Amino acid sequence: MTADPMLFNLPVRVYIEDTDAGGIVYYVNYLKFMERARSEWLRERGMTQASLLEEQIQLVVHRLDCHYARPARLDDLLDVTAQVTQQSRCRMTFAQDVYSEGMRLCRANVEIACLDAQRLRPRAWPQALAGITQ
Amino acid sequence: MTADPMLFNLPVRVYIEDTDAGGIVYYVNYLKFMERARSEWLRERGMTQASLLEEQIQLVVHRLDCHYARPARLDDLLDVTAQVTQQSRCRMTFAQDVYSEGMRLCRANVEIACLDAQRLRPRAWPQALAGITQ
Amino acid sequence: MTADPMLFNLPVRVYIEDTDAGGIVYYVNYLKFMERARSEWLRERGMTQASLLEEQIQLVVHRLDCHYARPARLDDLLDVTAQVTQQSRCRMTFAQDVYSEGMRLCRANVEIACLDAQRLRPRAWPQALAGITQ
Amino acid sequence: MTADPMLFNLPVRVYIEDTDAGGIVYYVNYLKFMERARSEWLRERGMTQASLLEEQIQLVVHRLDCHYARPARLDDLLDVTAQVTQQSRCRMTFAQDVYSEGMRLCRANVEIACLDAQRLRPRAWPQALAGITQ
Repeated sequence: MTADPMLFNLPVRVYIEDTDAGGIVYYVNYLKFMERARSEWLRERGMTQASLLEEQIQLVVHRLDCHYARPARLDDLLDVTAQVTQQSRCRMTFAQDVYSEGMRLCRANVEIACLDAQRLRPRAWPQALAGITQ
Repeated sequence: MTADPMLFNLPVRVYIEDTDAGGIVYYVNYLKFMERARSEWLRERGMTQASLLEEQIQLVVHRLDCHYARPARLDDLLDVTAQVTQQSRCRMTFAQDVYSEGMRLCRANVEIACLDAQRLRPRAWPQALAGITQ
Repeated sequence: MTADPMLFNLPVRVYIEDTDAGGIVYYVNYLKFMERARSEWLRERGMTQASLLEEQIQLVVHRLDCHYARPARLDDLLDVTAQVTQQSRCRMTFAQDVYSEGMRLCRANVEIACLDAQRLRPRAWPQALAGITQ
Repeated sequence: MTADPMLFNLPVRVYIEDTDAGGIVYYVNYLKFMERARSEWLRERGMTQASLLEEQIQLVVHRLDCHYARPARLDDLLDVTAQVTQQSRCRMTFAQDVYSEGMRLCRANVEIACLDAQRLRPRAWPQALAGITQ
């Protein structure tokens, strides 16, 4: 899809659990696919939400927007991307697309906040997640 | 549906999130509807899973079987029942039906185990949940 | 919550199916609660997605944004609102909030498109759904 | 796990969407994982539910039972199996296990019915799905 080294891709197969009575993927479920891609992006860096929690770091979705262009169907093999487009001291924004056969189905921006897991207050990114967009 | 004082009923509306590409309720989701009915059965007795956990009591599904006869459709108003049919020292079995307009769509038996929340080992039912079938 | 005659409210109970390993409502699921409120808003006007489809009218989510402020927990009784804030020839935007005990947990704007169900092209709102914001 | 040529395996990663407030996989979701394995079993035979529907063949879950032994946790990599254990003229039963690190978490038997998609009545298995257990 691209040669951008910052762009992470995850293939996602559409199962019957993902569809709705309109015969297409239930629009809310693309947000689950996108979170799977962010989880694998994190795993590729040697981390998981569980391993971060052990360091008292909790990642939460603070804000998202999503634009739907075309629907996916049962048995489609989707390509879900994740790319960090902005990062501040305590926030990070992912641009995420869902493609099917090279066509973009939807695009979202998902803003994640980094919290101290005990106090649930914003905190700085740990070393391993700092400076992503540089 | 019945005059049995032991039978608990919960109305459940079918939304688009509950359906699949077959145009009907995704069969796995009836088990969610049944858990909603068990949760409300518990609430009617003045308890919740959260309040039980404060007493170190955790309820888990140990076994279930389900037989599907007819499908529900978008916007149907279902009637979901819950009735305790068996109880032993550490287990309880609910018979649960889902009806639409007086017709039974599916029936399940759901066996719940009462655990000590710390040790995750079977323990006796607390006073408030003992002797249900007597 | 308000005396605004245009504001629709739906109570939604949080069940275990709605939560995640963080012990709170999985953030994606608020969008399901909001769709339930829009479905009931439609039903109050004497329509359902199914009845609209019989007139070859299909409603789809075209765009949404959501801002999360506080999490909901298991057994919370939420208040989910729906209010049409903008309407054009083929589009309608709902502002939707989720409250728990008077505190706002999240707010979304959900833009719906009205399509011809056969051609899947934008079409004008039917009489019963035109002029909502006037 | 086994050298049985009839045994199909699908790896399934646990994501936050699959968990509940107990910090473990929501028990209902194992049934989704099992259906993913059956879908891939079918795909390996060159079929999908969609391709079967084009031949007017609809597969539905008629009955299931499930026994839960141990819970899975966030980020676990599960091994989900599917094996046909019984087949009659219009029915087929899959035994399905979910393993994590070699330990069985749950086991289900899922009975599928083969229907004529138009009349929704039982029909014989098509050639490609007949005689599986022989």
